[in-house]
Amino acid sequence: MQAEIITIGDEILIGQIIDTNSAFIGKALNSIGVSVYQITSIQDEKQHLLKAFAEAEQNADIIIITGGLGPTKDDITKHTLTEYFNDVLVQNNQVLQHVEQLFKKYINQPISDLNKQQALVPSKAKVLNNRFGTAPGMWLEKGNKTFISLPGVPYEMKALIDNEVLPNLAEKYKRPFILHKTILTYGLGESVVAERIEAIEDALPKHIKLAYLPTLGAVRLRLSGKGEDEAVLAKDIEIQVKKILPLIQDIFVGFQNNNEGLELIIAKQLAKMGKTLALAESCTGGKLSEKFTSHSGASAFYKGAVVSYATQTKIDVLDVSETLINQYSVVSEQVAKAMATNVRQKLKSDFAIATTGNAGPTKGDSDAEVGTVFIAIATKDKVQAFEFSMGNHRERVINKTVNKALELFQKEIFEN
Amino acid sequence: MQAEIITIGDEILIGQIIDTNSAFIGKALNSIGVSVYQITSIQDEKQHLLKAFAEAEQNADIIIITGGLGPTKDDITKHTLTEYFNDVLVQNNQVLQHVEQLFKKYINQPISDLNKQQALVPSKAKVLNNRFGTAPGMWLEKGNKTFISLPGVPYEMKALIDNEVLPNLAEKYKRPFILHKTILTYGLGESVVAERIEAIEDALPKHIKLAYLPTLGAVRLRLSGKGEDEAVLAKDIEIQVKKILPLIQDIFVGFQNNNEGLELIIAKQLAKMGKTLALAESCTGGKLSEKFTSHSGASAFYKGAVVSYATQTKIDVLDVSETLINQYSVVSEQVAKAMATNVRQKLKSDFAIATTGNAGPTKGDSDAEVGTVFIAIATKDKVQAFEFSMGNHRERVINKTVNKALELFQKEIFEN
Repeated sequence: MQAEIITIGDEILIGQIIDTNSAFIGKALNSIGVSVYQITSIQDEKQHLLKAFAEAEQNADIIIITGGLGPTKDDITKHTLTEYFNDVLVQNNQVLQHVEQLFKKYINQPISDLNKQQALVPSKAKVLNNRFGTAPGMWLEKGNKTFISLPGVPYEMKALIDNEVLPNLAEKYKRPFILHKTILTYGLGESVVAERIEAIEDALPKHIKLAYLPTLGAVRLRLSGKGEDEAVLAKDIEIQVKKILPLIQDIFVGFQNNNEGLELIIAKQLAKMGKTLALAESCTGGKLSEKFTSHSGASAFYKGAVVSYATQTKIDVLDVSETLINQYSVVSEQVAKAMATNVRQKLKSDFAIATTGNAGPTKGDSDAEVGTVFIAIATKDKVQAFEFSMGNHRERVINKTVNKALELFQKEIFEN
Repeated sequence: MQAEIITIGDEILIGQIIDTNSAFIGKALNSIGVSVYQITSIQDEKQHLLKAFAEAEQNADIIIITGGLGPTKDDITKHTLTEYFNDVLVQNNQVLQHVEQLFKKYINQPISDLNKQQALVPSKAKVLNNRFGTAPGMWLEKGNKTFISLPGVPYEMKALIDNEVLPNLAEKYKRPFILHKTILTYGLGESVVAERIEAIEDALPKHIKLAYLPTLGAVRLRLSGKGEDEAVLAKDIEIQVKKILPLIQDIFVGFQNNNEGLELIIAKQLAKMGKTLALAESCTGGKLSEKFTSHSGASAFYKGAVVSYATQTKIDVLDVSETLINQYSVVSEQVAKAMATNVRQKLKSDFAIATTGNAGPTKGDSDAEVGTVFIAIATKDKVQAFEFSMGNHRERVINKTVNKALELFQKEIFEN
């Protein structure tokens, strides 16, 4: 069972937006045993759409199309799909009513002519209700091939995938099971990890694949399997995991469920321990805090952060002593430790993480080399600081510091 | 002059990572007048690679391939490209030396056999030096068609695009100019904006296109043009901009250069005014702070933030009175105002923005409905708070609040 995802919109091709929809759809399809053969992003141009539809029909059983369903003139997906199916557009009264209700509720205005057209759908299409927007999803069949057209607005698309597309696909197609298991490691490079487990990789059974996913400071090992029996498949993957783990014990952090980040593993552990966390961020500028609070349930363990970006804010809000700063500089082990210790006390938390460094591109309030970063971790009993040289690329320095802080902190709490 | 971007890797198709590379490459190619015809993401599978190469050769003049160049067994791009060009792999001594140096510098180890293979390149390829990693970029020509293979690691790929690919393409191909101008509006929906400027859109000259890019609370209007003479093209686009602006005066925020966000427009304005900013974030959890600090130069105007996620942190760090919180609840106009006023004083800034709300999915420390948000803005002379109902989707509530806070604040400082 194979799918192709087609995302439509010039904004993707000129790089004005990043296409996040296809990753979401790929993951969703995988969860019900559908493999994605290809993702194709194309321009808002009729001939190109028709060509992509025809090619996808050759390659895949299920074709999921996003984008180009808005009410404005640059949106041509619905008309082109209607032409591809030799169909005509007809008014769907249920959709019309829904659009009218949305307008009444949110802007308290009667529906405009432009938006009335949102209720037109190909006569052969089954309508998929879009709770959150005016563009309906559309389901069209050609023999055993299914074309599904969805709006490009991410939250509208996501609700349609979860509530309409997956249940309908599961009903229509018989599918194998696809399982992934991802092992998270920190501290060694991709090639070193690969050499350690080479013998296991070479002896993998045919229905199981191994992939290496390196990111700053971390390597994820993903085992993927496909099979008819879910329990057997899970066992087959588990056998390989058990062979790999002893060889990477020193760098093993945990398993990554559903692609979750290290911050979620930490969040669960803190909630389990009944402990709380506070942050003092300088060079990471709020990014660590944003990571922890992007997931629901953060209030169970997260007290908050002081983003002491300016040196004066470290003094005014975190009570870091001016003498200490003058003596050791604002990017120093001593200041990192003071930030962590003080934020832990002020926010009355069990643990605290502090970052101070120079993300560049130019030297800021300190004389430290661009890329120099200190990370401190404070507990009830102790405070430790670690020094790193994170290179000279601002975005990377910030992201590497965030990853490194999470890595150091998870080691701290999992040892406890 | 058309390009196709091929990104390779199962991790993209199963949704384990989001493909950000193609957006970067699309934007970079556009900047030198090359249009992207299609972006194709495919599996690490030889036959699929060969098929994609052949199709891209039909569609485009320039084919840029990322991914699959690592040292591990799941990386097959180099071997497949060599087969596609009926070529053989030969050792490149310059690359070998570079890989050896990287190993010496970063892990102080001799090079492994696996990494030695990184120095093998097709004999017909011109090597593009990858300063940051072991996989070289490769440039292969077939008549007037150019295949360029780059590593998938974003910062390695980016440096190669900027330093090697763009200069070489600019030298080889004669290209037209492509210009985009993006108008940023806040406060009205896509269809309402479209109706206002319908007459102008209908009368656009053929070489200029208009696109609508709606995001939470904002609509961007992008005018794109293509032509032989850059100055003439810029003038043609300017004529359309001048026609549009009078019709959207009330919702016009500014022009978005190079896809920059509202936070950069604000940053520039604050730097120009010589004024400073502090934040008190609750429901946005550090995301506003992260936005401002993700760009270099933030230290010119940004003091920092207090992320007072827990109610107790609002009391302990921001000195919001417990009586006030008990009387009005932690999600209230009064508390938002107190947060903004107090953070401005504590961090000694000219302006402050505060957010407090309930992002959901469940009610937190307050009785406020999920989605209820207050945003307050404090200046030297006054503090104002605004109430919003942001829906019941956590991620959206956070993002809408961030956008709304930026919108309200930019109105404040541009009026001053």
